[in-house]
Amino acid sequence: MTQGSGTPLAGLRIVECATFVAGPSGGMALAQLGADVVRVDLPQGGGDRGRWPVDAHGNSLYWPSLNKGKRSLALDFRRPEGRELLLALATAPGPDAGVYLDNVAGRARLRYEELTERRPDAIHIHVQGMPGGKPAVDYTVNAGVGVPDMTGPKDHGAPVNHVLPAWDFLCGMTAATGLLAALHRRGRTGEGTGMDLALADVALSAVGNLGWLAEAHLAGHGRERHGNHTYGSFGVDFPTADGRRVMVVALTPGQWEALCRATGTGEVFKALEPALGADLSTEADRFRLRETIEAILRPWFATRTLAEVSARLDEAHALWGPYRDMSEAVRLALDEPDSVVSEIDQPGIGPMVASAGPLRLGGSAVPPRPAPLLGADTDSVLSEDLGLSAGEIGRLHDAGIVAGPA
Amino acid sequence: MTQGSGTPLAGLRIVECATFVAGPSGGMALAQLGADVVRVDLPQGGGDRGRWPVDAHGNSLYWPSLNKGKRSLALDFRRPEGRELLLALATAPGPDAGVYLDNVAGRARLRYEELTERRPDAIHIHVQGMPGGKPAVDYTVNAGVGVPDMTGPKDHGAPVNHVLPAWDFLCGMTAATGLLAALHRRGRTGEGTGMDLALADVALSAVGNLGWLAEAHLAGHGRERHGNHTYGSFGVDFPTADGRRVMVVALTPGQWEALCRATGTGEVFKALEPALGADLSTEADRFRLRETIEAILRPWFATRTLAEVSARLDEAHALWGPYRDMSEAVRLALDEPDSVVSEIDQPGIGPMVASAGPLRLGGSAVPPRPAPLLGADTDSVLSEDLGLSAGEIGRLHDAGIVAGPA
Repeated sequence: MTQGSGTPLAGLRIVECATFVAGPSGGMALAQLGADVVRVDLPQGGGDRGRWPVDAHGNSLYWPSLNKGKRSLALDFRRPEGRELLLALATAPGPDAGVYLDNVAGRARLRYEELTERRPDAIHIHVQGMPGGKPAVDYTVNAGVGVPDMTGPKDHGAPVNHVLPAWDFLCGMTAATGLLAALHRRGRTGEGTGMDLALADVALSAVGNLGWLAEAHLAGHGRERHGNHTYGSFGVDFPTADGRRVMVVALTPGQWEALCRATGTGEVFKALEPALGADLSTEADRFRLRETIEAILRPWFATRTLAEVSARLDEAHALWGPYRDMSEAVRLALDEPDSVVSEIDQPGIGPMVASAGPLRLGGSAVPPRPAPLLGADTDSVLSEDLGLSAGEIGRLHDAGIVAGPA
Repeated sequence: MTQGSGTPLAGLRIVECATFVAGPSGGMALAQLGADVVRVDLPQGGGDRGRWPVDAHGNSLYWPSLNKGKRSLALDFRRPEGRELLLALATAPGPDAGVYLDNVAGRARLRYEELTERRPDAIHIHVQGMPGGKPAVDYTVNAGVGVPDMTGPKDHGAPVNHVLPAWDFLCGMTAATGLLAALHRRGRTGEGTGMDLALADVALSAVGNLGWLAEAHLAGHGRERHGNHTYGSFGVDFPTADGRRVMVVALTPGQWEALCRATGTGEVFKALEPALGADLSTEADRFRLRETIEAILRPWFATRTLAEVSARLDEAHALWGPYRDMSEAVRLALDEPDSVVSEIDQPGIGPMVASAGPLRLGGSAVPPRPAPLLGADTDSVLSEDLGLSAGEIGRLHDAGIVAGPA
């Protein structure tokens, strides 16, 4: 019953000159919405070409997973002639072209001013580590903003790094939003836009958005660790009788009542409230008494299997979820109809589990497309997008300025 | 030298009916780019109104931090007359209106089909927990995708939850990207778009984008914990002589050489390579020998202060960053010129540290704007956006359908 296919950006051309997670994940989000994204790499590939995880043959599963549905141009943009081709591609004419995303540092970098010389309404976003250009990666940025000090077991004396490069992903999606916002303006006013986006700013901005910066500033110190407890409310994990574990959360009064109903503990907590001077319908008191609540509920979970826990919590409409090993998560996702996870035939790899973008347009997931081999689209980009002749393309190959797939 | 102010979305109207982090952070990203975002709440506020962190007077720092730069309409959309007003607002005419973001569940929810009856080219994104509509929050989704099993100290026997609601933020920014992509299509083809976005899909999609789903599927089990070591390369934390700690990363051969140069360990590792049959210029071998590398480097850090470590690593252009307490991160950010963090005057709070959006348009950070008080814009939305008379507005107040600020 919903309108519109999965390709709202059909016809839009993005040139991406980026490596690792942030830039490439942003470009890929636009490709998954139908944009024609040309990823540009050096002929030997970027620093991320062989990144782990790898398959049994040592092929990177990371690179194809971050470049699904793009075209690949292998080009030595560190040499003047290659740089000139990149500049031409990034400033190609038309309302749906002239959009450039990069995180290139150093001499090879195309600057916004160079782009606007060729195309005054160019759109450019430059992704970097620190706002001044100093390099930084997700793990150094996360350390610098104070999150590892708040993470992990309560009695753990050292910072705990996150494993998910959360800042990279958020940065990439912010870049995608920024490019589309600039394109919106170009459509309305004809103006171009040059933007800088630093990973460190992404992290500061986000923790500020939770009120955490304000809190730390008022307190004069960072927040202590609370283990697996959800801050400011009630949420924690419980082991079950069959060796599984569940995460249970009660943010709202309704969720709290459902949890009490499911576990038959309503009367216990009702008796506890006057005894402890608490009102457990409030998040503040649930948080204050989190360890007491946890201790009261723990035996209920410890004496029931996951299946029993699941049935009772669902019946009461409590908010919860099981912990899963990632391989179990994959199996479940592959078995689900209309899942964002499926097996694709990936050039260079063979059958590979891959994920689609999470936006379901018209209600359905759009199946993932494979990634190109490095340089797979070099010749077609040079001929179709840049209008070069076969002879010119041959010369560029001979000079090592461009490369096809190995 | 760069074109364009910080408001590429000036003139665009977004109606947001959402609570907690995911939806509101997506709407706020658009507000930070200049859109006029009207957040709609029940007259008493949503379930997130009082969320922690709070200030010394118990006022939520969370709510204003997630609603900066929006307008606030307090409206009982659970009653038919209020629901009708919400529908009228969400389907207002004009090329820059008719864009609706929600995560409302149950009977009150506006469906895409209702929107398109009023406005065939309506744009709608519905944010939910699980793709089928079952509720889920960041912490249950994170458990379900397997990340807590990979997080934390190597010898820790239980899952470690992240504290940052990373999936919520990524979901919100994905919603922002989706809305702008749909708006792009409406501009090109006149078509509207209805989209569903589930938090669980956001998580599956992202871990798939790192190749982690493919890896877990091949291995038949999730990845083991590696403590603070960066997976598949070299990166780990080191304590310094003055009780500080740094995160050091070497993903590329150049970063590895810089680290060896800074610490004077080049010859040690050169001698180690043939002895252990390793090539430390490769990420795979740096990861395989991570604990050996760590053990060799640790004394160098342990005998130097943060200032000494900093000087040596920077001089060699190594990739590293200090761990900071969040209050130290705030102080540094407030002292920096052109920072994304500043102190604003927040209605209902007073002076409050707040963050701007991370996109620097034309090179500069856009200062953060305060959030509205709940219901601060009720009357202006009703009169200016919906064209209601003062009499009608008064009647709606009397009937409790709408509310102004408390």
